[in-house]
Amino acid sequence: MRTLVTLCLAAFAISVQAEDVFKNQRERWLKIAEDSKPALVKTVHQPQRTVKAVQDDKAYQGWRYETDQEMTPQKLKETNFKQIREVTLDLGDHLTGYLQLNLLPIDSDMDAPTRLRIMLGEVPAEMNTPLDPWAENRLARSWMQDEVITFTLANVPYTVPRRLSGRYLNIQFLGGSTTFNFGIDVSFTSETSARKLESDGLAEGCPQMIRDIDRIGKATLRECMQTVYEDGPKRDRRLWIGDMYLESLANRYSFQNHLLTKRCLYLFAGLARENGILYANCFEYPKPHPQRLNYMISYNLLYIMTLLEYYRDTKDDETAQDLWPVIRVQLEDALAHVDNFIFNPDKQPQSWNFFDHRAGINTDACLQALIIDALKASHELGMALGKTSEVKGYPALAKRMTEAARKQLLDKKTGLIVSGRDRQVSVISQAWMIRAGVLNQKEGQKALTTVLTMPESVKPSSPYATHYLIEAMLLCGMEQEARTYLTDYWGGMVSRGADTFFEAYDPENDHLSPYGFIPLNSYCHAWSCTPIYFIHKYPEIFQTSH
Amino acid sequence: MRTLVTLCLAAFAISVQAEDVFKNQRERWLKIAEDSKPALVKTVHQPQRTVKAVQDDKAYQGWRYETDQEMTPQKLKETNFKQIREVTLDLGDHLTGYLQLNLLPIDSDMDAPTRLRIMLGEVPAEMNTPLDPWAENRLARSWMQDEVITFTLANVPYTVPRRLSGRYLNIQFLGGSTTFNFGIDVSFTSETSARKLESDGLAEGCPQMIRDIDRIGKATLRECMQTVYEDGPKRDRRLWIGDMYLESLANRYSFQNHLLTKRCLYLFAGLARENGILYANCFEYPKPHPQRLNYMISYNLLYIMTLLEYYRDTKDDETAQDLWPVIRVQLEDALAHVDNFIFNPDKQPQSWNFFDHRAGINTDACLQALIIDALKASHELGMALGKTSEVKGYPALAKRMTEAARKQLLDKKTGLIVSGRDRQVSVISQAWMIRAGVLNQKEGQKALTTVLTMPESVKPSSPYATHYLIEAMLLCGMEQEARTYLTDYWGGMVSRGADTFFEAYDPENDHLSPYGFIPLNSYCHAWSCTPIYFIHKYPEIFQTSH
Repeated sequence: MRTLVTLCLAAFAISVQAEDVFKNQRERWLKIAEDSKPALVKTVHQPQRTVKAVQDDKAYQGWRYETDQEMTPQKLKETNFKQIREVTLDLGDHLTGYLQLNLLPIDSDMDAPTRLRIMLGEVPAEMNTPLDPWAENRLARSWMQDEVITFTLANVPYTVPRRLSGRYLNIQFLGGSTTFNFGIDVSFTSETSARKLESDGLAEGCPQMIRDIDRIGKATLRECMQTVYEDGPKRDRRLWIGDMYLESLANRYSFQNHLLTKRCLYLFAGLARENGILYANCFEYPKPHPQRLNYMISYNLLYIMTLLEYYRDTKDDETAQDLWPVIRVQLEDALAHVDNFIFNPDKQPQSWNFFDHRAGINTDACLQALIIDALKASHELGMALGKTSEVKGYPALAKRMTEAARKQLLDKKTGLIVSGRDRQVSVISQAWMIRAGVLNQKEGQKALTTVLTMPESVKPSSPYATHYLIEAMLLCGMEQEARTYLTDYWGGMVSRGADTFFEAYDPENDHLSPYGFIPLNSYCHAWSCTPIYFIHKYPEIFQTSH
Repeated sequence: MRTLVTLCLAAFAISVQAEDVFKNQRERWLKIAEDSKPALVKTVHQPQRTVKAVQDDKAYQGWRYETDQEMTPQKLKETNFKQIREVTLDLGDHLTGYLQLNLLPIDSDMDAPTRLRIMLGEVPAEMNTPLDPWAENRLARSWMQDEVITFTLANVPYTVPRRLSGRYLNIQFLGGSTTFNFGIDVSFTSETSARKLESDGLAEGCPQMIRDIDRIGKATLRECMQTVYEDGPKRDRRLWIGDMYLESLANRYSFQNHLLTKRCLYLFAGLARENGILYANCFEYPKPHPQRLNYMISYNLLYIMTLLEYYRDTKDDETAQDLWPVIRVQLEDALAHVDNFIFNPDKQPQSWNFFDHRAGINTDACLQALIIDALKASHELGMALGKTSEVKGYPALAKRMTEAARKQLLDKKTGLIVSGRDRQVSVISQAWMIRAGVLNQKEGQKALTTVLTMPESVKPSSPYATHYLIEAMLLCGMEQEARTYLTDYWGGMVSRGADTFFEAYDPENDHLSPYGFIPLNSYCHAWSCTPIYFIHKYPEIFQTSH
């Protein structure tokens, strides 16, 4: 066995030991990324209504808004805000961009600064949960979109410098002149690199719930499509490989902005470590830079998938050839963590292999599957690019890893994949093994059916993990189950009033938060937009009423 | 007597009844104001040290700063601010302009917004007095220069949008990423329309205290000289006629930016009411507009004084001719409040006749004096401009008003001017009557000497009122007293650590505030800069050591 691995590794012309494998490419790649930056479509919106918060156990997370019959956005311009003191506006949709406020004098001149607190939020509970005092170990307090603004001028539209994202805007009066009376004119300029779609592309008889899911999925993707594929426009506002992959799949069946995918692929390549290994996420400003903290083999392998899908969509041979060395380094690095054809999580350097937010989940089996899958994807791409000799060992290696996985990770008695020392049984381990072809259709059906009904199995806790479950169902012929699961899961968010799909969603627990505090959740999250992909890739399954 | 007044008023070609007396001039005047707007000199400053607040009964208002030996502005750039949490920096001088902050990453990437609270203040007590809860009836809470800033980028200098003014900068950490460590680089870009002076213009033997007063007076004026003569760069940041008058006098003996005086004169003229009566203050932005609330005959008459002084300085006949009708309307309006040669405060429309902040002060006598003075000034200016027939009645009218004042307001027994129904005796009533020539030198000396030593007389509470007292002393030959008073009064601020002279100052009460809250006081206030005027106009009195 060792011989085969050695043979495969020897085929790599690029070594992770090399000083700077992309030294001569880095700058050029970043230039291509910059040149591929899309223009943003800007649209000015007016608030649609004012609302009042209602605490309601039956509402999502215990809060909902209802229309305030006494105040309107028009009245807000004409009524002295010092009397109103506080208002909540509904922008009418989830928007990402810049808030403008203009103080309109009423029969008086502004003779002192005026101070307002504004807060934009995505969902009602986020707006109505007290934020302070803030627990020190949480994600940053400053993710919350509350800002204190001092106006020194009236009759001049003031743009809040911070880009904001959400639907509901609360405004409070904090201080100002006793003699200056003013109304407030509010507008919001949204930004996205997604074009306006002329048609929803759905079949005539498509069920309403699927229509809703498709519409909201596209709203989610639209909001996340900025000058990169962001993960969430409220939080974390950045490019992650895992999100990019799913967004690019959904993009194929909606906005088809393939240039954006190209930009993201080049950004990651241009920001790789000296040894060519990618960082899992990166930032665009003030100049493109990676977050050096995050090393994730799982995401690096999804980079391979993204380039393959991009190539399938565009046949852009130049880009694929150019980035081919990046693919090889990620694969080589992943394989360096393999012992006897099995992924060894203890190998240095250790990586954070994200597959789901669920606390305590073991992802070793998922990574085993993903490496096998990446070998196959790299082989397909390599063959298409004429790299025959470089990739010729991949199928054999994938086969040996498949055999090792079946031998060591497949519980023959239960037919389930187990993961880690504690032989954890989770839904996503089965799903990823199905995707990798380690389990065949029949085995996969059985494993998924069993694992989903076992009380003690670890269930997915995020739309991200759920995407791979739906995919696995479709791969092993569980079409009706996939349709039902997708409709129930994403439909659950629809019936909870979602304008965009959430980062974290568990039908059993509306208060689920990976951060221990629901206002920190991102309620418009890229990785949740993928129903678009399934609905349009499999119209016969999802768009028919049966 | 009535005949004479009627005669004088008949001489006015312009009537306050006219629909819009300046209809055809307004736009042209504002254009001249705009064309006279000075360029601002910008200078970048670095903080000089970090400081710690010390509560100290002997310090001004109970607080002082001492150098923090453990931290420096340089160290602040290199030390993780999340550990420091809070710092106070000393910019080294009172500055007006824009604060820049730059977050400098230390071994990590910024992966969440960072939120800081900053506060700039003029004096230590302002920085260390708790601001909240804020009493509703105070001036605006938002005058306080504390701002909450959300940084979304590191390594990018962020300029606080609000113009700030002061010397001490406090920075507090409010929230941010647990993994992002950063230092802070602070700089401040000051702005002024005052040029740098090459020499202090003082005699060689000038006493140190006079040197200090002159230096601080010039710093005060420099800070207030922006694109108008502001009253105070922290608060109220606007152009008032009364401040403009005193600033223009000090300007003559320092920066000599007469174009700025011209701009301010034209601004007021262009923003007058339709009947030609001026508003007491105005704003430049978003476009020039008056504060329609403020009607002050006292200030309107000082407009006349300002134009006369401007004409004396520049011999700018074109401007003086152009604005001559403005003079006449103000004078006519003031005279419309005169009955039987005595100012009648009950006449409609009633005006706020500011002469001092002292609570309960009666200013009727001051206004009587000021009208007499304005008649004389208008006569001088009118004669110089060839308006002989228009002004020929003024001296006689001034004389009749002087006689009436002496008859009705001069207490023959005490030799003191009394004011209002309660026959209030105040220092400033004497001072203004001396200025107007109602009291002669000898009478003035006696009145001032008496009133200043009387326990029950109303004393001045502001540098504004004190200016007119010093002037009166000099006018009636009390040179030594003027020198001593000026040195004691402004020197008292010097010894209290003033970087600039205060809006309100009473040697007996460091906690004096016209607003019931000392942090609201303006500690750099235009009307306090006038020692410049006295020191340089009378070098033999102030610049010699005797």
